[in-house]
Amino acid sequence: MKIVYLGTSAAAPTIDRSLTCICLVRENEVLMFDAGEGAQVAYLKAGLPWNKKMKIFVTHLHGDHCLGVLGLLQTMSLQKRTEAVEIYGPDGIEEFITANIKVLNFGLPFPVFITIVNEGNVVNEKDYQINCCEAQHGITAYSYCFIENERAGVFYPEKAKELGIPEGKLWQELQNGNSVEVEGKKINSSQVTGEKRPGKKIGISGDTRPTEKLQAFFKNSDYMSFDCTFSYELKDRAIETNHSTAKEAAELAKNANVKNLILTHFSARYNDESILLNEAKQIHESVIAAKDLLEIEI
Amino acid sequence: MKIVYLGTSAAAPTIDRSLTCICLVRENEVLMFDAGEGAQVAYLKAGLPWNKKMKIFVTHLHGDHCLGVLGLLQTMSLQKRTEAVEIYGPDGIEEFITANIKVLNFGLPFPVFITIVNEGNVVNEKDYQINCCEAQHGITAYSYCFIENERAGVFYPEKAKELGIPEGKLWQELQNGNSVEVEGKKINSSQVTGEKRPGKKIGISGDTRPTEKLQAFFKNSDYMSFDCTFSYELKDRAIETNHSTAKEAAELAKNANVKNLILTHFSARYNDESILLNEAKQIHESVIAAKDLLEIEI
Repeated sequence: MKIVYLGTSAAAPTIDRSLTCICLVRENEVLMFDAGEGAQVAYLKAGLPWNKKMKIFVTHLHGDHCLGVLGLLQTMSLQKRTEAVEIYGPDGIEEFITANIKVLNFGLPFPVFITIVNEGNVVNEKDYQINCCEAQHGITAYSYCFIENERAGVFYPEKAKELGIPEGKLWQELQNGNSVEVEGKKINSSQVTGEKRPGKKIGISGDTRPTEKLQAFFKNSDYMSFDCTFSYELKDRAIETNHSTAKEAAELAKNANVKNLILTHFSARYNDESILLNEAKQIHESVIAAKDLLEIEI
Repeated sequence: MKIVYLGTSAAAPTIDRSLTCICLVRENEVLMFDAGEGAQVAYLKAGLPWNKKMKIFVTHLHGDHCLGVLGLLQTMSLQKRTEAVEIYGPDGIEEFITANIKVLNFGLPFPVFITIVNEGNVVNEKDYQINCCEAQHGITAYSYCFIENERAGVFYPEKAKELGIPEGKLWQELQNGNSVEVEGKKINSSQVTGEKRPGKKIGISGDTRPTEKLQAFFKNSDYMSFDCTFSYELKDRAIETNHSTAKEAAELAKNANVKNLILTHFSARYNDESILLNEAKQIHESVIAAKDLLEIEI
């Protein structure tokens, strides 16, 4: 699993930074969080797949966070995509997609399923869930959290052999955490595997002020990607525009016991994001500043 | 006056080519023809002005030709634009702009005037006009032509001095082609200026099959930018998708007595557009292949 940053600029793109788009790339699926204008070009540059299972989560309906969805859908058509695309977002997302599909004469050769999200659980897959928490951004906006389910422990083949379990389907069952029966004897998964491994928790803030609610929502995240539009010097501007400063992002991360903080969504006024990075590092020990096409292996 | 190509790719962007956007940059005004996704980034890269008089002409309502208008408007707001933007396009353009402004919570600090175009004259300014001709592209689509009015001839100051005309306002009048009176004697502009200079004619095809109607419309253009999605080898595909081949663009240019042909809107399958350029050069002697950020001084 890896996180790929396709765009890291706030509000307007710069020559070096495209508008917000973050992908969580799993073995069989791409989870995209926001898709500002230019997402499809960055997707192409990152070499991501055009016909894999895909979910797009829109945090809020400002153009710099969702306009890229349209071009992405159109190019997927040209790439002869057949897999469905699921789109999640606040009320209005359906109108945005369908009105544009109608007026722009789109024909999509694959299904698009649109889900209007509210707080709470929005996706519940076999291996993970996605939860949603209200953010604070002037218009309806959500933060998302990817929570991987507990994974089975490491499988020890030699232990399975000792217990006389024939290689094949039964090993698979045990690896998946199930128990099996061999010659009338029940064998539990725990007898041939190590301890269960905790799943990863990854938070994506979207655009927001820091809030106590989000601090609770992101509690104990392994990685948290957070709005870092301004430096603390411009706190008033952050309050006025409903964004966060580097210092505030780091404080929230520290209070929420987040292991790794990733700053993103930088105002175009910062040619060099090190001022923001240094501000956050005063407070949290593991911080990085995202840049376009940054990949983080999880 | 210069033509600036901000995007030259057909349907989908490539790493090197953005989606269609062509600007005619005049001293006091920018005329933009189409604005595919990414137009605002290319506009920024080209160093074009954010608060100048501006008209945007959309050829047709396919996403790759108009989605960039939205981000452009949004970024102009952030750039604190105050000048109005005029947008021209086929029926549906108003719905496209207004529906998105509504659902995306845009607030624009400058006026946007939308005009639905039909065949014939669509803009009539002091120095130029813009005409419109139906193209052939499966949906309603237009080609545009910029026609500069005849310009006054070169002004000869020594002739004005000989005739005893005092420097200043009267010189300006004569330069502008008007006659003046000095000591009761009427002096015509032609006495102090060279021959009137013909204005330039510049054609922009948008997406289209070559047609006789367009051939007449672009007659005697100084520059004509034409749909060159495919090579002639893929003529069937061009017919099927309502585009043109390099050969067809060159034939139309030759038959229309176009001085300079600019090929653009290349299918992403062509990593190297020289195959298209060479095909056109067999037929027309002055052809160039556009590339992103190409500037042509007129």
